[in-house]
Parts: sequence; C-alpha cells; structure tokens
Amino acid sequence: MTDDTIFEEERTLSSAADITALTRLLGQQDYADVATILESLPLEDRYLTWADIGLEHRLGILVVMRSDPREALIDSMSLLELDALFKGMDAEDLVELSESLPNRLIDRALSAMDEIQRHYYEGAKKYDDELAGHWVSHQFLSLPQNAKVRDALRLLRRELPEYIDTLFLINRTGGFSEAVRIGSVIGAPDHLPLTDLAEEDFTVINANDDATDASLKVQNSRFSALPVVDENSILLGRLDIGTASEIVNDYYEGRLMATAGLDEDEDLFSPVKTAAKNRAVWLGINLLTAFAASWFIGLFEATLQQVVALAVLMPVVASMGGIAGSQTLTLVIRGLALGQVNDVNRWALLRKELQVGAFNGVVWAIVVGIIANMWFDSFLIGIVISMAILVNIITAALSGALIPIALTKLRLDPALSGSVVLTTVTDIVGFVAFLGLGALVLT
Amino acid sequence: MTDDTIFEEERTLSSAADITALTRLLGQQDYADVATILESLPLEDRYLTWADIGLEHRLGILVVMRSDPREALIDSMSLLELDALFKGMDAEDLVELSESLPNRLIDRALSAMDEIQRHYYEGAKKYDDELAGHWVSHQFLSLPQNAKVRDALRLLRRELPEYIDTLFLINRTGGFSEAVRIGSVIGAPDHLPLTDLAEEDFTVINANDDATDASLKVQNSRFSALPVVDENSILLGRLDIGTASEIVNDYYEGRLMATAGLDEDEDLFSPVKTAAKNRAVWLGINLLTAFAASWFIGLFEATLQQVVALAVLMPVVASMGGIAGSQTLTLVIRGLALGQVNDVNRWALLRKELQVGAFNGVVWAIVVGIIANMWFDSFLIGIVISMAILVNIITAALSGALIPIALTKLRLDPALSGSVVLTTVTDIVGFVAFLGLGALVLT
Repeated sequence: MTDDTIFEEERTLSSAADITALTRLLGQQDYADVATILESLPLEDRYLTWADIGLEHRLGILVVMRSDPREALIDSMSLLELDALFKGMDAEDLVELSESLPNRLIDRALSAMDEIQRHYYEGAKKYDDELAGHWVSHQFLSLPQNAKVRDALRLLRRELPEYIDTLFLINRTGGFSEAVRIGSVIGAPDHLPLTDLAEEDFTVINANDDATDASLKVQNSRFSALPVVDENSILLGRLDIGTASEIVNDYYEGRLMATAGLDEDEDLFSPVKTAAKNRAVWLGINLLTAFAASWFIGLFEATLQQVVALAVLMPVVASMGGIAGSQTLTLVIRGLALGQVNDVNRWALLRKELQVGAFNGVVWAIVVGIIANMWFDSFLIGIVISMAILVNIITAALSGALIPIALTKLRLDPALSGSVVLTTVTDIVGFVAFLGLGALVLT
Repeated sequence: MTDDTIFEEERTLSSAADITALTRLLGQQDYADVATILESLPLEDRYLTWADIGLEHRLGILVVMRSDPREALIDSMSLLELDALFKGMDAEDLVELSESLPNRLIDRALSAMDEIQRHYYEGAKKYDDELAGHWVSHQFLSLPQNAKVRDALRLLRRELPEYIDTLFLINRTGGFSEAVRIGSVIGAPDHLPLTDLAEEDFTVINANDDATDASLKVQNSRFSALPVVDENSILLGRLDIGTASEIVNDYYEGRLMATAGLDEDEDLFSPVKTAAKNRAVWLGINLLTAFAASWFIGLFEATLQQVVALAVLMPVVASMGGIAGSQTLTLVIRGLALGQVNDVNRWALLRKELQVGAFNGVVWAIVVGIIANMWFDSFLIGIVISMAILVNIITAALSGALIPIALTKLRLDPALSGSVVLTTVTDIVGFVAFLGLGALVLT
C-alpha cells in the first residue's frame, strides 16, 4: 500500500505543477508546449487535464499532437465537444487529424465545413501522406501573370498568412508561372509588371514528390514556402517551412524510434496492453533471428562440450561483428536517406568500408587473440578467435554496406529492418566461424 | 587488375553524370544539393570536382556542408583561394566555418572583415555552439519603440533580409521590447504608433538557451524568426527558421549516428585511416563490455560442460533482454529529449514500463520455454529458460527506464552511452540468470 500512496502523491503534485504552466502556455497559444505537457501526463491525469482545457484551445492542441495520444483524447470527447471542435476546422486541420478519426467522424467533420474546404480536403486526400500533395496549404497569395506592382500592394494590405515572403503568379489555365518576393514589391514603381521582379530559377514542388524530400527542399530554399503543383502544373497550394519542419522532424523521430522497432507516434503513457502489443511483434521477429543463431550454435554441440572456452568467448565474436556492422549500416542508411549513395558510388563506398573493416578487423583480432590466449592459456584458442573476429568484422562491413542497399531495392525501409537482418548475419557468421574453426583446430 | 579497371570506369561515369547536375544546381545557387553531391563523391573525385567550381560559389557551398568533408576541401585550397573566400565572408559565415578552420586561418579571415562583422563574430564566440547565442543572425529590421507605421514602411522599402515577417522594436538601452508583424504594418494608418500593432506574448530567446530547444521554439512559433537577447535583455539578433531547421536536423542526425557511436559530421568517404580510427574507440568500449559478459559466463564453465544446451540457448536470453530494453530506452530517451520525462512522472513511467515488461516477459517466457522444451526434450531446460527470460525482460524494462535518467543526472548523453550500458546489463543479467538457474536446477 505504501507504493500506491507514493504514486497517488506524485500524481497530485504533477497535476498541480503542470496546471500553472498550462494556464500560462494556453494564454500564449503555445500549443506545441501544451501538447508536450499533455503527452507527459499519465493517462488518468491527462484526461482530467484535458477536460479542463477550454474548447477554443482544443483544435490547436490536437493538431500539433502525436497521433497516438491524440487518438486517446479524441476518444474521450463527447459528440457535443467534437462538434464544437469541427466547427472551427479547415481542410488542413482535418487532413492532420484524419488519421486519428474514424470514418464516421470524418464525414461528420466534413459536413460541418463549407464547400471550398471540403474541396481542399478531397484534393489533399488524393495524395498519400508520404507525398507532398497531402500536406498542401491553401493560405497563399496569388495574382494573374499580367498583374502590376499596384495590384500586389493592394493584395498585401489584406491580412497576410503565416510564412509568406513571395506572391505567386498564375497563368490563364491556373498553372504556376513565377514567384515574386514581397520585399521587392514594396517600394517598386506602381506600374511595373510583376514578372519584371520575378525570381529566377524558383524551385517548384510536384505534388507526387516524396513529402520529406520536398520539405528538405523548402528548408534549404531560404524561402518561407514553395509552390506545390500537380502533374499538369496546376498550382495546388504551397508547402510552408512550418509544415515542412514538422514533416522533417517526424521523419527523424520515425527513424530514431525505428531503431527499436517502435513507431514515432508511440505514446509515452499508452495503455499497458497497447504498448505491450506494439512491442511484441518486434520481440517476436527478434526471437526468430535469435533461434536461428542458436540453431547454428547447436550444430557444434560436440565441440562446445570438448572446449567449453568456446562457449565463454562466443558472445565476444558475435558482438564485435554486430557493432562494426551497425557502424557501416548507420552511415550507409544516412547516405541513402540523403541521396548520397547511388548506383555509381556504391562500389567505391563498399571498397572503402571493406578497407575500414579490414583495418579494424586486424587490430581487434590481435587484441582479442592476445587476451583470449592469456585468459585460457591456449595459443590455439587465441588463433581461432583472432581468425573468427577478422572474418566477422569484414563480413559485417560487407553486410552493413550491402543490406541497406538491397533492402532499398526491395522497397523495404532499411531504417526499420536493416539492423535485424544485419545482426542475424553477424551473429550466425560469428558463431559459425568461431565454432567451426574451433572444431577444426581444437578437437 | 580487373577490379581496378572497374573502379576507374565507375569513377569516370560518376563524374560525368554529376557534373551536368552540378552545373545546373550551381546556376540555381542550390548549394545544399551541391554539397550533397560533393559529399557523395569519393575523395579524389571530390577534389577534382571542387577545383572546377567557381570561386563565387564556394563560400555558399562550404557553409552548408558537414564539417568533416568541409575540412578536407578547405585543406585542399591554396592560401590565394582562401583569401578570395574570406573576402565575401560575414560574421555568420565565419561562425559556421570556424570549427573547420585552424586558428591562424580564422585570424586571417577576421582581418579581411570590417569592424562590425568582427564585432559580431566576437559576440557569437562568447557562446558555446550548444547555445542559442552562437547562432544569432544580424540580418533583422529594428526601430525605436516610439516609431510610427510610416517609419516602418520606409524601412521596408529597403532590401528585406530572408525569413522576415516581423519588425523588432527596441527601447533606449538597446533592449528588445516588442515585435510587429510586417503584415499588420502594410495598410495601417501612417501615424499609428507601432506599439499599437505589437504582438502579444511574443516569444523571446535567451542567448544562453540550449540551441536545439531554442530552434524548436522558432519552428513552433509560426514566425519566421525570434529575437535573441543577452542576460541584460539587450537584443543581440535573431534566430531565423532556416538556421533553426539546420540546427534541429543536425541534432537529429547526431542522435541517429550516436546509436552507432558515430559523429553527425562523419564523412561518407573519409580516408580509411580516419574512419577506422573514429570507429575503433566504439569497438574498444564494446569489447570491454563483451569481455565483462564473457567473464560472467566463465563463472559457469562447469555447468556449461555438463549441460551443453545452455551454451546453445544462451544468446536467446541475452538478445530478448537487449531488444526489450532498447525499446524502453528509446522511448525514454525521446521523452527526455522532448522534456516529457521529468522528476514527477518518472515513477509513473517506470511503473508502466515494468507492467509492459512483465506482460511481454510472461508471454515470451512461455513461448521460449515451450520451444526449448521441445528442442532439447527437457522440461527442466524449458523452465530454466522461461524464468531467465522473464527475469531478463523485467530487468531490461527497469534498466531501459532508469539508465537514461541516471545518465542525464550524471550529465552524460544517454543517446550516446545509453545502449552500451543497457546491453551490458541485459547481457550479464541474462547470462547469470540463465546459467545460474541452470547450475541450480540441472546439475
């Protein structure tokens, strides 16, 4: 019972401290930080706190929240509360929330929207959420191609959307033609055609471009937003640097979580059952590979019985290979993600990684060999483990370079599956090389 | 020799294809993509290509490049070329390049700058590169606190810097007072004081704030830049969303590379010697932990000799613990990085992770127990491995939650050292639990 009392106390404390912070952040409309605080609360606390947050803030908070915790909060809301939420919603909000909403609620939200927002929503939904077209914003300023500076100035007097530093010029068919910096319009002569001020070589995003690549383009463009066009060059909207940054950050979080077989949306305090289920798959996959490695060890039972030192040293061989391989793997996965590894340079890369592997293989083979020799007072054991380490580190370099390239060709995500495949290879090669050599030399 | 010919051919191909792309990208001043291409070239090719790139493009490219490849290119340049580079450089460029420049070249660059840029550079250097003050940009628009709309409009007619959507109002002592959206200035009456249009609760960054936290604030602010002030509230400059995105992306890359003991600046084609050295440290640390685990296995040599099945199944126990632990570890490290894990909720988090661990521990203990029982036709081996798996998965949950929290308290980076410590614990606990129980029950 003492334990429970402690937790009760903690919970009350947590709420009290957070509520002061929350009130301040809500006042500043700092919804990202509010979302972070909510996500950091254990479930019961989170529901209680959520119930206290005014309806006017809720949409802003939900939109920036990770989808797992968001889903739980949406589930906790009554239909009346949801209707209030839907009232203030535009197409982009619904696109963001749609993955957390069941279809009947999406329909309900759509019927609360006006025609144009519904149209925008249908447009975004034509593109998968991995594509730039899904994330288009319709808050932009555009003018016909033949507009003059004076027209632009009139437009600028209206309320400007966020992240705006250019005006888009559109041709007669609705196609994007050029972009003009707002900075160059202010102060220019009234009658000047805007095309005279247009940017040269302005980057345009295709709606079918990968969303992360497109977002990196926006971040590197030094503009606050880039236009997004469909396959007929029709201007659909723009991708602004705020949205782009969210997409890039989600992408990186996804890759970090993938290293442990987790999803970027995983809730810090998801219900135990959900969390356990999410993780069980990864443990199951890993169990298969672990048993595969064990099966190979099992082939050498007789040898292990005769030379028990092999059983003692076995994990060293496997683990050195695993670490060396994961270094190459991590470097190559990053290179692939950045578009730095391609069909042309991959042989040069493989050669370099093999050289690095050979170098470290020799160094650590000698070190481990000497230690093993001294530990078990056997020159032969030293030789056997040296050879096994050398073989495994070189195999690891080879696998670390080739596995992610092969997985990418097979359209599998190397960030997710690369390390499992790699570890399986380095475990099996490590055990077989070590025990096999041991069987040959020592028995 | 055949091998070498293939590589020669590849190299020529690579250069030919890339040079067309490079010429186009240089024309668009898309320096980020140029940097990516250069980084993807093997070293000799990279030097050759670099020599072909016009001096006018070089600064732009170097500034966006990762520091390892950048350093190599700078080393390849003559003093004459470097002087040409330094001529066009402002304080922010030098701050960016300074980590790749030896001190004598920094002095040379400084002496080519005018007084004010030198002053800016000294200002930035007062702050470590982990702090927001280091990354301040001086390209901003400011007016005295009592300025009117008409003053702002006059200012806006000058060339606007990138990523500008607000004007900063400064008080008499140079302190930041308020921010006004450019959008609300255009179209407002000429005589209106700007303070009437000022934003409420505008976020201000302190120069001593952590650079990544500050950058995330900029990304979440929905503004293109936020002001940075020193400890006396004096306005030093601003942090724009372009720089903020670079800082955040570097941070994520650093965390991804840290999972393999690598640096985010690691060059895809660093010289073999450098690469091998960079990685050797991590392999060495890992070797120590692997030998520690082996030492514990060695305590059970007699048991292993009697029941060789234990040697065969040993890796399964260790690996299930390692995977389960890394799942908790990854979740907690992310929570710590996002500021979601704090002194108050960490007990609730630990309790949840222990429950998840207990759940998966029981499930996988049963599965592994049944498989082991069938494989070795021994009920006792099944029981022993079941118990060991259960103990190790629960230990893993406990360690995965507590290790990163403890490392953070010790001011160590859990992203770098967390997984090594965790694997050591799960390996040792796994081996000792399994072999220890085996010794008790089976011999």
